Amino acid sequence: MDYRPVNLREKLATFDDYWAPRVVAALNDYQVKVVKVQGEFVWHKHAETDELFLVLAGELVIEFRDGQVALSAGELFVVPQGKEHRPVAQHECHLLLLEPAGVVNTGDAGEALTADNEVWI
Amino acid sequence: MDYRPVNLREKLATFDDYWAPRVVAALNDYQVKVVKVQGEFVWHKHAETDELFLVLAGELVIEFRDGQVALSAGELFVVPQGKEHRPVAQHECHLLLLEPAGVVNTGDAGEALTADNEVWI
Repeated sequence: MDYRPVNLREKLATFDDYWAPRVVAALNDYQVKVVKVQGEFVWHKHAETDELFLVLAGELVIEFRDGQVALSAGELFVVPQGKEHRPVAQHECHLLLLEPAGVVNTGDAGEALTADNEVWI
Repeated sequence: MDYRPVNLREKLATFDDYWAPRVVAALNDYQVKVVKVQGEFVWHKHAETDELFLVLAGELVIEFRDGQVALSAGELFVVPQGKEHRPVAQHECHLLLLEPAGVVNTGDAGEALTADNEVWI
C-alpha cells in the first residue's frame, strides 16, 4: 500500500487564520504543527518545555527580553524552556512548530490569542 | 544581542558524506539532525521511538514491508515505533530528522552504515 506523506504546503492552504496552530503529525508525545502568523504575538514563556520554530515561508523575528533572532525560510530556532519571547512577523509568515503535545501557544500569558492546542488537519 | 538561527542549507553545505546525520539543534531530550542520503539504506526499526523524516531537497522513498511512502521537498512522514523501514533515494536527497537523543540511525540492524549519533555541526 502507498502511505500518504504530510505535505506542509497543502496543509497550510486549508486555513487562513493567524496564530492558530494546527497539528499535522505526532512523534511519540510530541506534535508537529503548522501555523500562519502576522503581526505581534503576546509576550509569554513555556515553563515546562523548549519550543522549536522552523520558518517555511516569509520572515519571523522572535523577540527576547535580552535580544532577538531573525529567521527566514529554511531557518530554525529553539526557544529554551522558561525564556520569555514574542514572535513578530511584519508580513504573513508560515511556520512549523514542534513541541510536546498539550503545550498552549500563549504559555503563561493566557490571553485572547490562546488557541485550541489539539486541532488536527 | 542578536541570536543566531540555524540555517539548514548552510549546515548541509558543511559536509558531503551520505547516511551520516549531524545534530543541528536540541529540543528538550530530542535532537534535530540533517543528513544527505543517496542509494539504499539498510532495513531496520527503532523499537523505542517514532522517527520523523522531513525532505528539504530531492525525493525520498521509505519502504515498508507492507508498502511505501514517497516524499518530496516540503513533505514529512513519521515512521511509527517498531515499524521496519528502509529509506531509498535514487538521487541525492537532503533530510531533516527528528528523534530522541541517542537514537542510532541503523536501529536494530547494526551494520557498517551505523553513524556516530552525536555529531553536532
